[in-house]
Amino acid sequence: MVGCGTLDLLARRGAQITRAVGAELVVRRIAVRDPSKRRAVEIDPSLLTTDALSILDDPEINVVVELIGGESPAGDYIARALRNGKHVVTANKEVIAKHGSELMELANRHNVNLFFEASVGGGIPVIAVLRHDLIANEISSLRAIINGTTNFILTAMERGQDYGSALVEAQRLGYAEADPANDVEGIDAAYKLAILSTLAFRSNVHPDQVARTGITRLNPKDFQYAARMGYVVKLLAAAEVGPSGIEAWVAPTLIPASHHLASVKGVFNAVLIDGDQIDQFMLYGRGAGARPTASAVVADLCAVAHNVLRGVTERIELVQHDRPVIDFGETRARHYLRLQVVDRPGVLARIARVLGENDISIASVVQHETDETAGVAEIVIMTHPALERRMAAALKGVGELDVVREVSAFLRVER
Amino acid sequence: MVGCGTLDLLARRGAQITRAVGAELVVRRIAVRDPSKRRAVEIDPSLLTTDALSILDDPEINVVVELIGGESPAGDYIARALRNGKHVVTANKEVIAKHGSELMELANRHNVNLFFEASVGGGIPVIAVLRHDLIANEISSLRAIINGTTNFILTAMERGQDYGSALVEAQRLGYAEADPANDVEGIDAAYKLAILSTLAFRSNVHPDQVARTGITRLNPKDFQYAARMGYVVKLLAAAEVGPSGIEAWVAPTLIPASHHLASVKGVFNAVLIDGDQIDQFMLYGRGAGARPTASAVVADLCAVAHNVLRGVTERIELVQHDRPVIDFGETRARHYLRLQVVDRPGVLARIARVLGENDISIASVVQHETDETAGVAEIVIMTHPALERRMAAALKGVGELDVVREVSAFLRVER
Repeated sequence: MVGCGTLDLLARRGAQITRAVGAELVVRRIAVRDPSKRRAVEIDPSLLTTDALSILDDPEINVVVELIGGESPAGDYIARALRNGKHVVTANKEVIAKHGSELMELANRHNVNLFFEASVGGGIPVIAVLRHDLIANEISSLRAIINGTTNFILTAMERGQDYGSALVEAQRLGYAEADPANDVEGIDAAYKLAILSTLAFRSNVHPDQVARTGITRLNPKDFQYAARMGYVVKLLAAAEVGPSGIEAWVAPTLIPASHHLASVKGVFNAVLIDGDQIDQFMLYGRGAGARPTASAVVADLCAVAHNVLRGVTERIELVQHDRPVIDFGETRARHYLRLQVVDRPGVLARIARVLGENDISIASVVQHETDETAGVAEIVIMTHPALERRMAAALKGVGELDVVREVSAFLRVER
Repeated sequence: MVGCGTLDLLARRGAQITRAVGAELVVRRIAVRDPSKRRAVEIDPSLLTTDALSILDDPEINVVVELIGGESPAGDYIARALRNGKHVVTANKEVIAKHGSELMELANRHNVNLFFEASVGGGIPVIAVLRHDLIANEISSLRAIINGTTNFILTAMERGQDYGSALVEAQRLGYAEADPANDVEGIDAAYKLAILSTLAFRSNVHPDQVARTGITRLNPKDFQYAARMGYVVKLLAAAEVGPSGIEAWVAPTLIPASHHLASVKGVFNAVLIDGDQIDQFMLYGRGAGARPTASAVVADLCAVAHNVLRGVTERIELVQHDRPVIDFGETRARHYLRLQVVDRPGVLARIARVLGENDISIASVVQHETDETAGVAEIVIMTHPALERRMAAALKGVGELDVVREVSAFLRVER
């Protein structure tokens, strides 16, 4: 899809790009799995090949654009192209998140460029901003909505839809895949956050180091309770750096309704960056889709072409530190808890005691609708900031109380 | 102020920058008006000179950073530096807005770079985004809040303060100058909009071609009426391109409360860009101040250093078209009108007739508080889109009606 978008854009904007950059970008060959497949753009069939190596090993080719996605074989293709002295432009978040540092080194060794603007945020130029424009900043924090699929689903749930029907709608509109796990489990967001954190904090963050909670267990009820307290629920991708290291996590989170990210609706994305020089800075736009992503791919291609014409390579030493990534259990946050409890005096005291034993203090408690016939009450608790591992222990303890029927929801709360 | 911020940043981040770029940035000399003045940062006195030419003509100097501001002598200094084969980094919006194209040509002729990220939006990298990242887009529209001083004043007026006291507060906090005309008359915003429009539409827009209305005549009442109708009042800098050319204007404007720019408060800035590939895209951040602006200056310096090390020059043909700029009178908009009228039957009919004669149809009318003792009523009218020159004619006609005591407010309305 992004491949067709890129070809279409190069065809339509060829003259403008040639004039701006001073060179014509010519598509020499296109490797595809199935040459006979019908495509959204017209392609000269003689350009198509099923043999990717015929591109990667062709000495006539300057730049390889990798838009396959997935770790394999894309990662090997990129490495091979770099080793063969070709510049590479890719939209592959998985490969860059997992192997970006080695590939960057490989690119430097072979004196070529590896550009990956399209890997995060579609048409939003967040990579360029972190690489170049904020170069003089110490960045302390990233807060982002970087998965359009889940944001679309959560926006629908905010209007009262349940998770299942919102997912079906997202699939119908082409925003979610048949197997939505990559999006709804936060895997995609974790890849992107790993890339952004590595650039922002100039220290490697591997996607496995990003703590991750998906959105599949969310209930429209929590959106309503959140709204009553002045919050919205978003799949937040968050990272920050402190004296003891970097923390990075992706989780459904209560965000104040007045927060800049709260108004990011549907498939839109936004990245909020705190830098010591620029203070608060935000980028907002379409984080996916063929056209925005192609916009980023072609911008990278223009930068490569500019360099090729001058016989130079962009070389900015991005990673300068070796900062530890903090275990999620050692991070602190406020939490939102929704419990089904037996409607009986003394229940709250028993819950509060378990929380207190884990050093968790309660900021507010509201007892919502009670199902009198069943003798069950619903309690929503907001805590003060607490260590995640103490919170997990407390949650286990609370769940084991005989008066607690169910821990129905457990979410982070952002200030 | 930005000068000290830049020196401070270079001193504090020297090692990081050297490592990232591969070269040390050394400050060779600093031209100032008064070397004995106390400054916010410690400066080696031997670096100071009052003789700017000793910098501009020194063959040992690679890059000149111009942070004087104002058209003269800064414009001549920049031109001289470029002619002497030096790269130039500037934060000078007036010079770039008025003479950017000639200076860019001069830079190209002498094979050096002229970078001006800091001229618009402080630390917000809107210039880089337009120059590089959106290169494959046809941009159709810009909507921006690009003057922090006026946005601070308008945010205060939104809370009920009057213009005078809000201005005094802005001056006390250092956000407004003793002579605030440049900001409050929209001159500063017009410079910035001219720069952004030129880059976005790839066609020269001179600041004199930007229609301009200031904020000095705004009344807190209009903020209240606007709020009741679901709008906020902002000094909007707007430009768009259509088949007949470019329109560009700066004016206090009613913006829907749900609009992305409506939540931009205080001294913050934001630029909303519509591109055919990326769709809606927004940058938000601190548009002024020593630190954000220094962040942009140093990012430009790093880009120059990167080029100097490789012996190359960035050369992107920015201006590719010769699009006419449409006379403001020929642009269309909805309007908000507030009138003091004699409280008597038939008044509204007479006003409506004048509007109708000018092809202006009324979208809504509300008669607000009436001062019964004076026999005066206040009427607020919202029109459908109308030609600006017809609106001006109608306004004149309405003002001449004997039943109209005063045309108290007249503002554009944005969808």
